[in-house]
Amino acid sequence: MFPRNCWYVAAISGEVPNRGILARVVCETPVAIYRTANGAPAALLDRCPHRLYPLSKGEVTDKGLQCGYHGLTFTSDGRCVAIPSQPEIPATACVRSFPVREAHGFIWLWPGEAALAETTPLPAFPTGAGYRRGLDFSCVTDTGNWGVAGPERIHIDANYMLVVDNLLDLTHAPFVHKSTFSADSVLASERIITNAGDQVYDFIAMQAPLSPALQNAYQLGDDIHDNFLETHWAPPGVMILAHGATLKGGVREDGTCVLGVNIITPETSTSCHYFWVQSVWQNKGNGIARDTWGKLTRLAFAEDEATLRNQQANLSRFGVEDLDGDVELVLKADRAIVMARRIVARKVRAEPR
Amino acid sequence: MFPRNCWYVAAISGEVPNRGILARVVCETPVAIYRTANGAPAALLDRCPHRLYPLSKGEVTDKGLQCGYHGLTFTSDGRCVAIPSQPEIPATACVRSFPVREAHGFIWLWPGEAALAETTPLPAFPTGAGYRRGLDFSCVTDTGNWGVAGPERIHIDANYMLVVDNLLDLTHAPFVHKSTFSADSVLASERIITNAGDQVYDFIAMQAPLSPALQNAYQLGDDIHDNFLETHWAPPGVMILAHGATLKGGVREDGTCVLGVNIITPETSTSCHYFWVQSVWQNKGNGIARDTWGKLTRLAFAEDEATLRNQQANLSRFGVEDLDGDVELVLKADRAIVMARRIVARKVRAEPR
Amino acid sequence: MFPRNCWYVAAISGEVPNRGILARVVCETPVAIYRTANGAPAALLDRCPHRLYPLSKGEVTDKGLQCGYHGLTFTSDGRCVAIPSQPEIPATACVRSFPVREAHGFIWLWPGEAALAETTPLPAFPTGAGYRRGLDFSCVTDTGNWGVAGPERIHIDANYMLVVDNLLDLTHAPFVHKSTFSADSVLASERIITNAGDQVYDFIAMQAPLSPALQNAYQLGDDIHDNFLETHWAPPGVMILAHGATLKGGVREDGTCVLGVNIITPETSTSCHYFWVQSVWQNKGNGIARDTWGKLTRLAFAEDEATLRNQQANLSRFGVEDLDGDVELVLKADRAIVMARRIVARKVRAEPR
Repeated sequence: MFPRNCWYVAAISGEVPNRGILARVVCETPVAIYRTANGAPAALLDRCPHRLYPLSKGEVTDKGLQCGYHGLTFTSDGRCVAIPSQPEIPATACVRSFPVREAHGFIWLWPGEAALAETTPLPAFPTGAGYRRGLDFSCVTDTGNWGVAGPERIHIDANYMLVVDNLLDLTHAPFVHKSTFSADSVLASERIITNAGDQVYDFIAMQAPLSPALQNAYQLGDDIHDNFLETHWAPPGVMILAHGATLKGGVREDGTCVLGVNIITPETSTSCHYFWVQSVWQNKGNGIARDTWGKLTRLAFAEDEATLRNQQANLSRFGVEDLDGDVELVLKADRAIVMARRIVARKVRAEPR
Repeated sequence: MFPRNCWYVAAISGEVPNRGILARVVCETPVAIYRTANGAPAALLDRCPHRLYPLSKGEVTDKGLQCGYHGLTFTSDGRCVAIPSQPEIPATACVRSFPVREAHGFIWLWPGEAALAETTPLPAFPTGAGYRRGLDFSCVTDTGNWGVAGPERIHIDANYMLVVDNLLDLTHAPFVHKSTFSADSVLASERIITNAGDQVYDFIAMQAPLSPALQNAYQLGDDIHDNFLETHWAPPGVMILAHGATLKGGVREDGTCVLGVNIITPETSTSCHYFWVQSVWQNKGNGIARDTWGKLTRLAFAEDEATLRNQQANLSRFGVEDLDGDVELVLKADRAIVMARRIVARKVRAEPR
Repeated sequence: MFPRNCWYVAAISGEVPNRGILARVVCETPVAIYRTANGAPAALLDRCPHRLYPLSKGEVTDKGLQCGYHGLTFTSDGRCVAIPSQPEIPATACVRSFPVREAHGFIWLWPGEAALAETTPLPAFPTGAGYRRGLDFSCVTDTGNWGVAGPERIHIDANYMLVVDNLLDLTHAPFVHKSTFSADSVLASERIITNAGDQVYDFIAMQAPLSPALQNAYQLGDDIHDNFLETHWAPPGVMILAHGATLKGGVREDGTCVLGVNIITPETSTSCHYFWVQSVWQNKGNGIARDTWGKLTRLAFAEDEATLRNQQANLSRFGVEDLDGDVELVLKADRAIVMARRIVARKVRAEPR
């Protein structure tokens, strides 16, 4: 279950070069995402109205997206502008187009009712004081203040909400991320979970000092540091995880942090696209901090990928379609998950079917 | 959707050697096609009536087709003639047999009501004047007048009618066959599409001279040639495409041609067998014409195979079972397709269900 | 169709080392079979009640089976004894456990109603006089009197009853086992098929002398031997096949034999686990008899595996779910099969649904 009237990240900007075409499935809808010769992104339903050939197998010409079977050509608003075998263009010769935006290094797509897209801004988080340096996503492209690892895409054979669950309950770290982020301290730490409107916020002040591995990743030397983790979620799958470190007893403004942009887009009901960027504040050591965080993230997210794939495969073999209705056991650690899933369910119910 | 009371090509003659067995699915029916020791082709339902073991996994003995599990043996009319573990042969010990004929280098099979097969001749086209040299299929085996490339079989993961569509609308050539038959001239050329009884005829007089590539394939030297293409279709998937070339302004009788036998047999609702032969008139250059046309055809049909596979995969992922009911846009170039599909639909409706 | 209130072999003892976990599906039920630190086998439904993660992907700790996602830990009776992220353990924190027993080199599992397991002994056959040396399964572990090849497990993509059928009608040997056990003599030999309670017994006195291949397997020298085959079946898939050989005209007590333990456990409706042991009486030639029988069996059972896979694939493509209702032809050689299938059907019907 996913809402359709939302901006979803469909691709990393670099996945679609000029005149390139990318076949992608977003919310169970196959789309041909392409760029015109002048670089503008566009997205059409991946199906020529003539013989239903996938438009993503065609090519981009000066006129538009040309079907690879009989050469019908469409502009980015879905109008047919050329039929090679005849001069007349019937009124029915059009294909559904989707609103797209390009921002923060991503191509965003609106799979729902197009009219609503215009008045809906891209997801954003309130930029608060202190550590929340750049929750407006500037961290993703601003390589002056930030060392940016990514963006990267991971294809995960799991329902997108299982990935959201994973990020909204970090008590899995001591078990799943034993060899990477491993943070036993997350278990005993106090968590503050709140929501503001449709967004959920989860704060964990670690009860133990920053681990040697992360101290090295930040390139912070030997001083003892406090550290914390804050998670911001906007429906349905847009998240920023901020990990921060300060000298023991110090104030946030003097510390450092990593902002992890994690955006999850449904593909089918049992698979999704996971886009991530890790931005390291000040990027110490001539890029060593950025590279170390990048490597650590790649390893850790591969652990998550395996875990989520195993989980989805188990749901599927037990015939469980939706985890919501089948959970026998809800723990305190699931509080943010429960809140987020209710918000998504409400959004889905509010849409016309 | 396919009619069952029809002769279908099930195999190339050479696919079934003496005492050989071929497992093949024709019209969703698994059959064991085999030859007795004396070379006669036969076809039985691929299922022993005893424990439902596939008869195609057995062997041909002097007595008949012997099941590989418990050795029950059947003659080509489906009667059981041996049960190794007991002397008695129950009346229920029989398996469905199918009428078969061998002609034009193919084994033809009748998947429908057997009684109707006897009175139904194999498909044939009227042999007209001029270029239609050999529309009685003699071109396939007569290697005196003809240089014969093939027969070959291509397995295509597409409904057989999508392949028929492909051959009944050659305006795809400039897009699909850019690197082979590429013939932009097909787009602007006048087409004459007619039907006679259950057969459809599509004639295209090319508006441009014969291309250098085809001139070379025919081994015709440098003179400018006119050229044309005529397509003959008999339901459900028997076709001859004749490409002809004459000296500019010359008459057909003095020209040359290639007869392309294209026979498409349904396997499942989303796959088919595509049999082809290309026969080149007079076969110039000691077989060079034949070999050049053979190579060109192999390359071009691989382009068709990819196109048709992509099209079927797109139909399947959009949940479209039958293209007929789901086409939003019919072009003038689809006229022969529309006629052929109506004829097939009428034949299907006329059969008992 | 399989009865659930039965002891099934789920694993070879050696497949589950101490603290090891084995993911296995028995009767369409995924289970995590593991051993505690002290070696006791246990089996839990392979699904953590929290987020439905497969418990088989976790690890065995001193406390129990720990889930690999959030660390919830369960004892072998299914009680949760640890939730790392909180001190309280809710009453709903439990997972279904299955009765298990370890005997004869196997781990047996009861997939049905647990209360009935306690009062139901493991399957056994009556130990008669003469050749039936060890039908109490002692042959499997007693390596004093017996040379033991196996236990081994074969995964077969076929319904378990097709494997039972195969063993209850050995007239397939001349066709399937041409290159191994090949015994044309089985066809003309008299068979005595009886049942006692829920067990079926099939006796074949071979009408020809012991073949050179088997004489060599037994390491019996050149004397002419009589030989026979007796098959004992207990529902649903527990079998012992005894092949015996005596000097021509001699008495059983002076002869030799091989006891083949064959146990078939349903996995899904179209796949099963086939466990086997071959125990050779007196194991002549310093283990040569045992090794020769082991090799012969491995080859022959690979022939059966291919046959059964072909048969199931054919049932599936013809849409036949259950061979019982679809057999057009029953032979005399099927008598034991018919008896066994009736007994299994009666057991299935007797269970609550």
